[in-house]
Amino acid sequence: MAEESRYAKGLMKLAEVDGKAGEEVVAPLGDLGRYIVEFAFGDIYSRDTLSLREREIATIAMLTVLGGREPQLRVHMGAGLNVGLTPEEIEEIIIQTVPYAGFPTAINAMHVLKSHQFPEG
Amino acid sequence: MAEESRYAKGLMKLAEVDGKAGEEVVAPLGDLGRYIVEFAFGDIYSRDTLSLREREIATIAMLTVLGGREPQLRVHMGAGLNVGLTPEEIEEIIIQTVPYAGFPTAINAMHVLKSHQFPEG
Amino acid sequence: MAEESRYAKGLMKLAEVDGKAGEEVVAPLGDLGRYIVEFAFGDIYSRDTLSLREREIATIAMLTVLGGREPQLRVHMGAGLNVGLTPEEIEEIIIQTVPYAGFPTAINAMHVLKSHQFPEG
Amino acid sequence: MAEESRYAKGLMKLAEVDGKAGEEVVAPLGDLGRYIVEFAFGDIYSRDTLSLREREIATIAMLTVLGGREPQLRVHMGAGLNVGLTPEEIEEIIIQTVPYAGFPTAINAMHVLKSHQFPEG
Amino acid sequence: MAEESRYAKGLMKLAEVDGKAGEEVVAPLGDLGRYIVEFAFGDIYSRDTLSLREREIATIAMLTVLGGREPQLRVHMGAGLNVGLTPEEIEEIIIQTVPYAGFPTAINAMHVLKSHQFPEG
Amino acid sequence: MAEESRYAKGLMKLAEVDGKAGEEVVAPLGDLGRYIVEFAFGDIYSRDTLSLREREIATIAMLTVLGGREPQLRVHMGAGLNVGLTPEEIEEIIIQTVPYAGFPTAINAMHVLKSHQFPEG
Repeated sequence: MAEESRYAKGLMKLAEVDGKAGEEVVAPLGDLGRYIVEFAFGDIYSRDTLSLREREIATIAMLTVLGGREPQLRVHMGAGLNVGLTPEEIEEIIIQTVPYAGFPTAINAMHVLKSHQFPEG
Repeated sequence: MAEESRYAKGLMKLAEVDGKAGEEVVAPLGDLGRYIVEFAFGDIYSRDTLSLREREIATIAMLTVLGGREPQLRVHMGAGLNVGLTPEEIEEIIIQTVPYAGFPTAINAMHVLKSHQFPEG
Repeated sequence: MAEESRYAKGLMKLAEVDGKAGEEVVAPLGDLGRYIVEFAFGDIYSRDTLSLREREIATIAMLTVLGGREPQLRVHMGAGLNVGLTPEEIEEIIIQTVPYAGFPTAINAMHVLKSHQFPEG
Repeated sequence: MAEESRYAKGLMKLAEVDGKAGEEVVAPLGDLGRYIVEFAFGDIYSRDTLSLREREIATIAMLTVLGGREPQLRVHMGAGLNVGLTPEEIEEIIIQTVPYAGFPTAINAMHVLKSHQFPEG
Repeated sequence: MAEESRYAKGLMKLAEVDGKAGEEVVAPLGDLGRYIVEFAFGDIYSRDTLSLREREIATIAMLTVLGGREPQLRVHMGAGLNVGLTPEEIEEIIIQTVPYAGFPTAINAMHVLKSHQFPEG
Repeated sequence: MAEESRYAKGLMKLAEVDGKAGEEVVAPLGDLGRYIVEFAFGDIYSRDTLSLREREIATIAMLTVLGGREPQLRVHMGAGLNVGLTPEEIEEIIIQTVPYAGFPTAINAMHVLKSHQFPEG
């Protein structure tokens, strides 16, 4: 597959997963943004075997426990809603992180979730 | 709910999720093992909203990216199989961690997966 | 011990350790806040063997070196004062973290300490 | 204070805290070992305000939650015993880490503790 | 070498590396700031074998991947420019971190770089 | 650029950087290994602006401070030698990590370095 088509494929997948928020993340990032489109979305998110919903469950959990990734967590909570997670399920993912990484990162993630503007409630 | 029933409930959930491997983890750990049973399994894993399969997707991803948790990763790969994940899906979870935490922790997790003795294949 | 009494016990311990700041942390957090009360305070902080002062020495050190936990660090610096630590001792805990996690997380913790409003000086 | 005296002071403090295990750690490390003696022990551990017992409470908690520092954790569990902690208190420090960093790092630390050869029980 | 000369030597090295930004970091930090001058700059940055440019390549990479060290990253991007790195080279260091720690910490570092006021463009 | 040529380009770069050790790392890793070749080496290491020597300075520093990446650290110490670093310079990179991440990860990295079999001394 040519690079152009990896980029195009990644851009479509990014829009499917993150909506406009994804474009806003990558636009000002130059080559780094291009690799996010080509590699993260054109290569990885475009794979089969796990659904987008399952990929976002993993991603929200990872971003929560690693800590200090609140801007990315905000984007991926929106992405989670786009691919079929409910706010209650996102809250549940955060609760699932507690036995593995403790309360502080879960509290920080919960504040990101509570401050999120959900489309209609 | 009384503590005794939280412990009993947790022990049943632990067996459902981890099989014998779970018992072997908690047995030598004293009070720490008791909290794993009561809190991690009696409280958290016993909740609704996410399936056990989805909880293990999150858990395998978290343990991979945090690094240095190989013994727990080994137990939860077995747990993942118990609750319906295939080896291919576990490999896919590891691949999904790469954009969020890079290759080294994914390589370490893949070696844990490759060295795992799967029941019949 | 029934869950109700774990919650009640945890709430009393939380007030003893964190004062009002603790209540403000857990109130908006739903089930996550309930687990903080029941498990972190009802189970763990209510144990013997270490004093509350010693538990906060460990906690301030942990929150400093893990990084990205500044909101929790602020709460536990207040908690440290509540259970008998002086501002000088909290500064000393931060200095003790340097050989184990380097200067950046210690600097961040020191700024949290310096910006803390101490009751009367 | 001249460097020679910082080194000499650090070496005495290292022996007081870690016993022979400390010397064995620094001996093969060249300049890195010298900085451990001069800075970690000559400067930091030689300060007042916190007791050596309190410094080891902080250190064991930090090394536990950071993960992947098992060799240092082993040395500092021995150090903790040297400066007055009991095995039960070290176990309690590990339990205190759970609300802040979850079960996996606590389990790993507990295995280090359980495999430790204590002088006479 | 006497402590006074370590401090003086460190202060000169700090000015060489960080310019005024370095002084502003250490001034309000008390003994912690003194150790930054004496140990980080008087001892470590004053060593031979690697150039200051190479030390800042390592430092910017480390601060990026550890996450949550944005204030220090900002100071060391300025330091990198002081010792001969170009903004393009700093961007390249950030891109080099992606295979080792993933996109989120690289994105956060890139935002610090993009918001940096460079002396003349 | 077509995928085939990214893979071919990455494989050449991998051989240039890591020698045989690189091939041994990626061979058993399936798609994960393919992404290491295509993305890490075909895309990132093949870029200009920083030399391979400078990229390995950054990489050895990152792998040291993140902790728990000892297998990758071993490979990249060999890679560092391949692209022109001396054992003394690698030791110096490890020493440079101390102010940013403390002694334990530096000690672990130093043990990896000391156990490394260097070609002829």
